[in-house]
Amino acid sequence: MEKIVIALGGNALQSKNSAPTAAGQLEVVKKTCECVADICEAGYEIAVVHGNGPQVGRILLASEAANDVTPAMPFDVCGAMSQGYIGYHIQQALRYSLSKRAIHYPVLTIATQMIVDENDPGFANPTKPIGPFYTEEEAKKLAEERGYTVREDAGRGYRRVVASPIPQKIVEIDAIRGLWDQAIVICCGGGGIPVVENMDGTLDGVAAVIDKDFAAELLAEQVNADVLMILTEVEKVAINWGKENQQNLDHMSLAEAAQYVKEGQFAPGSMLPKVQACMKFARSYPDKKAIITSLDKAKDALAGLTGTVITFA
Amino acid sequence: MEKIVIALGGNALQSKNSAPTAAGQLEVVKKTCECVADICEAGYEIAVVHGNGPQVGRILLASEAANDVTPAMPFDVCGAMSQGYIGYHIQQALRYSLSKRAIHYPVLTIATQMIVDENDPGFANPTKPIGPFYTEEEAKKLAEERGYTVREDAGRGYRRVVASPIPQKIVEIDAIRGLWDQAIVICCGGGGIPVVENMDGTLDGVAAVIDKDFAAELLAEQVNADVLMILTEVEKVAINWGKENQQNLDHMSLAEAAQYVKEGQFAPGSMLPKVQACMKFARSYPDKKAIITSLDKAKDALAGLTGTVITFA
Repeated sequence: MEKIVIALGGNALQSKNSAPTAAGQLEVVKKTCECVADICEAGYEIAVVHGNGPQVGRILLASEAANDVTPAMPFDVCGAMSQGYIGYHIQQALRYSLSKRAIHYPVLTIATQMIVDENDPGFANPTKPIGPFYTEEEAKKLAEERGYTVREDAGRGYRRVVASPIPQKIVEIDAIRGLWDQAIVICCGGGGIPVVENMDGTLDGVAAVIDKDFAAELLAEQVNADVLMILTEVEKVAINWGKENQQNLDHMSLAEAAQYVKEGQFAPGSMLPKVQACMKFARSYPDKKAIITSLDKAKDALAGLTGTVITFA
Repeated sequence: MEKIVIALGGNALQSKNSAPTAAGQLEVVKKTCECVADICEAGYEIAVVHGNGPQVGRILLASEAANDVTPAMPFDVCGAMSQGYIGYHIQQALRYSLSKRAIHYPVLTIATQMIVDENDPGFANPTKPIGPFYTEEEAKKLAEERGYTVREDAGRGYRRVVASPIPQKIVEIDAIRGLWDQAIVICCGGGGIPVVENMDGTLDGVAAVIDKDFAAELLAEQVNADVLMILTEVEKVAINWGKENQQNLDHMSLAEAAQYVKEGQFAPGSMLPKVQACMKFARSYPDKKAIITSLDKAKDALAGLTGTVITFA
């Protein structure tokens, strides 16, 4: 059976059109899990990696806002919390979506630590947006009052940015490998809880967000997956996006993708890391493929009917 | 190799003498994990169940306090968050404590749902204390303003109480059983995320705290553990506690324990559920044993040197 690592983007967990309540998110997660269950039903062994940007941002926001009532939690702990809660929702919803298809397969959320390099240039140059969008005025105020680094995000407003180091090593990888045949594993949530490894072997959590697409790619590499599938809002990757000559892509070779990246075709923090993660997978496994598509087209894309496929050649 | 389910109490996760910051808790968890690693080194296969009362209480507190900034999370989601963050801390610390002993064994936190009966009398009569201690005045104010049920707790002040239904079924039990030989599993944290199972097979989270001792007992039963070990602040269970004729117990048979319970020897929400969980285990497995002792005496108690042992006869 083919192995597939599925990376779920923000739209798989939360709707832009409703309040970010737990109930509202769970409704979105239920729809997402129908798509994931379809893939499982189609005969793939899967692991699920999810983003956590808005969720961990809100956890941090709540934690900081309540700091006079109870001590605020550091960002690594907020990340661990988000793995627990998003994983719980996916686990609960996916179990039901599978059971409707007469698939009685365990679904497990694993708290996952991800080792990053403390000398990663990411720590000097924060790029990862977290939490809600702000107006320019709000963003400037937060930068002054709380020392946030803020940045304009793809025309959608301002957001706080934190370090986004490259994931180096999944601490729990051996157990995840062992679990692969026994369960659908939800792991590396939010890219994993970022930790640095000290000389004595101890791990320390750090304030950073690891890109979930890079984390999913690392997982896919390390479990020797057949397909890395990154699900987002668009059915296909496009060049000249939003312009008159926009061109949706069915396929990119590594060389083509590299050229488009060089041209600045993909937005940093948005499509760029997705394409880069797929390029890394294609480079590591010249005989395998990575796919970028939308959640509702995932099954069709696996059948070769749509999506953007990235391969070595 | 003997299988042991270890239930960690509040003192294993947090010190009474320091602020409940993440850093402060991690220091306590590190010490706790040295004790757990000692047990592992002594040749036991272990699973760890932990409480979450103070932690989930603070998560809820922060979430509610920040409700005007971001929607407050329901209690089941707060529980899932606490599993993520406490599990992360234990996972990180235990890995190191084991590595110091040249044990390179995976440590995994599993988000765990626990099915409870929606008709459980617990929902009509909340008994489980959560969150911080309040003065009588504070407690009355919270009861009025937020509709909390509050109760005086063993002479230590007032606390909010929520429903504490009996755990019926560990949703992820199959996977936990499968993992037993591959990893030290941290599961059923905070007693598990309480869910009710609907007629159509869907699960819904509910506002309740499942006693972690009962959850640990259910786990011990279902993995056919040899020992259920409940770790708390005292080395031995006592009758006539705090009185002149206090008597520390080396052993209780099921009949003796039942008699002491009848006499009201054990404080509800404190020692009583621990003894009841041990009684349930001894009743289910007449040839096995349950032990109540303190964290630092755990290894000695397993060697038969201290602690209170509860057996069928």
